[in-house]
Amino acid sequence: MVIPADSVGVVQRQTFTFAEPPHEMALDNGGRLGPITLAYECYGALNAARDNAILILHALSGDAHVAGWHHPDDHRPGWWDFMVGHGRPFDIDQYCVICSNVIGGCQGSTGPSSIHPATGRPYALGFPVVTIADMVRAQIQLIDYLGIKRLLCVVGGSMGGMQALQWSIAAPERVAAVIPIATTCRQNAMQIGWNEVGRQAIYADADWCGGDYQRHGKNPARGLATARMLAHITYLSEESMQRKFGRRLRDKEDYGFDFGIDFEVESYLRHQGESFVARFDANSYLYITKAIDYFDLARDYGSLDQAFQNVRARYLILSFTSDWLYPTSQSLELLHLLEKNKKAVTFREFNTWYGHDSFLLPNPEMMQTISRFLAEVYSSRLPR
Amino acid sequence: MVIPADSVGVVQRQTFTFAEPPHEMALDNGGRLGPITLAYECYGALNAARDNAILILHALSGDAHVAGWHHPDDHRPGWWDFMVGHGRPFDIDQYCVICSNVIGGCQGSTGPSSIHPATGRPYALGFPVVTIADMVRAQIQLIDYLGIKRLLCVVGGSMGGMQALQWSIAAPERVAAVIPIATTCRQNAMQIGWNEVGRQAIYADADWCGGDYQRHGKNPARGLATARMLAHITYLSEESMQRKFGRRLRDKEDYGFDFGIDFEVESYLRHQGESFVARFDANSYLYITKAIDYFDLARDYGSLDQAFQNVRARYLILSFTSDWLYPTSQSLELLHLLEKNKKAVTFREFNTWYGHDSFLLPNPEMMQTISRFLAEVYSSRLPR
Repeated sequence: MVIPADSVGVVQRQTFTFAEPPHEMALDNGGRLGPITLAYECYGALNAARDNAILILHALSGDAHVAGWHHPDDHRPGWWDFMVGHGRPFDIDQYCVICSNVIGGCQGSTGPSSIHPATGRPYALGFPVVTIADMVRAQIQLIDYLGIKRLLCVVGGSMGGMQALQWSIAAPERVAAVIPIATTCRQNAMQIGWNEVGRQAIYADADWCGGDYQRHGKNPARGLATARMLAHITYLSEESMQRKFGRRLRDKEDYGFDFGIDFEVESYLRHQGESFVARFDANSYLYITKAIDYFDLARDYGSLDQAFQNVRARYLILSFTSDWLYPTSQSLELLHLLEKNKKAVTFREFNTWYGHDSFLLPNPEMMQTISRFLAEVYSSRLPR
Repeated sequence: MVIPADSVGVVQRQTFTFAEPPHEMALDNGGRLGPITLAYECYGALNAARDNAILILHALSGDAHVAGWHHPDDHRPGWWDFMVGHGRPFDIDQYCVICSNVIGGCQGSTGPSSIHPATGRPYALGFPVVTIADMVRAQIQLIDYLGIKRLLCVVGGSMGGMQALQWSIAAPERVAAVIPIATTCRQNAMQIGWNEVGRQAIYADADWCGGDYQRHGKNPARGLATARMLAHITYLSEESMQRKFGRRLRDKEDYGFDFGIDFEVESYLRHQGESFVARFDANSYLYITKAIDYFDLARDYGSLDQAFQNVRARYLILSFTSDWLYPTSQSLELLHLLEKNKKAVTFREFNTWYGHDSFLLPNPEMMQTISRFLAEVYSSRLPR
């Protein structure tokens, strides 16, 4: 792989461990968790005033590896590589870009597959059910540790957008701007439904062993793959699937009249399921979807108005026409709420046909919109 | 249960068996199947001219029990009861209403759970993969047996609509009118994708035993329940789920912070999954979804134009605004195709918020539209 000159290049995942007993971190469920390790990546440099840091937060299955290559021969760079680099929207010549993983995950941070220090065995379902607010609580510790008082911007799509919103509410004085993308301030019934079916697919796999599969030397690979295939369709759109696959057959001229693979779309989904299993932990899938389902700023703060009462950030809300999983209507709910409460907010809907995944794909309009917004925020970055 | 006076009343499922060896029925896969039993129900009487028969065809998980009660103490009547009865749109004082089940199914017709006469054991995956055209071939035998030369109308929603379209193409001289509802002339990539994930959920259940669960005394109940939960969401709409469940908790004041049931929508989906398992066979789910996925009139007849070249029926195409599984765009494709080929066709889209399931729910506009269309067809029923 020839690494492009404007890439962040070869990067390393870093970790930060904190909340060592007896200083465990308090959680929304009333319990405490510690020690906690967070995986993160960092590109570009903090300026002298330490006020050029951007925190990027990822979606359900993402990780801290937002840009660049871990090894020069990796097949692909980080998940939002086109957004982060020299001269790219998150310009590392200007900004210090941090991407943090989440607790409950399985990509280097403490989660259900981590070893429970008290037992010496994986937490499994002994891991506490965490919330988006808990994830942000841990990230605040990371940002403290990095010596950053105020983030120039917190940005994320989908679950990353939930974290970004939560950041602006939990630490209003520490966030100058927020870019919530393809997200919502409260998960709705259909979104909970999809997540619940994914969880059921995992529970249904006999190899899940009530969550104790690591101890039994098993892996609920088929259940997790099914959950992923289902979720993957919700990330696409009818149009994108029709354009990409249509009814094209896979390596055959006629139907097989059996239960092998007939259609390209079947092959694609099976591949998505299998490759996900290779990189993701089934229990983490349960915990993270649960955190998403619990996300409801109205419930957490009494009402949506109260939730955003004290926020001080500027918001740039983005959505996509073809996203039916987190549709524009949810972004508009957020827009109207912030407008009603006289907060600084801008909204843009982009015309795409990739569905919810649109935010993960290069889009000149989105890139320019974010780039300009950041420049504005940066030029007026002194606290208001 | 007090049975309403305009109901078809207490009814019985009937069966018709044919294609006894050596007269097995030829199938699209090149093989032959026999003997074949079809379950059906019949209400109202054939008139002297035998030209008042309406054939109703059901969707994926439906059956021949379209209206009335099998027992006076049944909890609910047939799946389209509000449509069939005295003075109802399918008025049994005027029409003879027949509802036929499908081959491949598990509701009294020959399918993978039937006993293979050659082996004395259930067919399981030894059952041939059948198509919508095969289902209709079998139904044509039933209509022959009932002594009906020409059906006044063939009607169905979803997979039932596919069968109705197929009827009008396979037996153009035997169908005066067709009402395809919330359906398509070819399954698209996303629709195939949903079905494939449902099948994967079944394959993933260790109790599926490669399809041989009956012989092993098992049942892939959890896999089938997962498939059903997933499919069930695709039958609803974001709005209907939000109105019906929202984020309401189930029998609790606060989140459980565990993997039990938190939300009403979770409880509802689990219930849908469990009750489906009690009445449906997992292998039938595989076979019927496969038949749906293979449905592509363009492929079967060279092109859509050629498929509809010889049809003689009048069409009333119906769709629903909130149906995102078989969206109006697919009904419009059919409409434009028939218009282009100068066929008699009318189209109506109804404004509903129930999603794909809209056709299964009482809707005065839909009922009146169908009622009027039938009256028109009946009054001009002599062959054109």
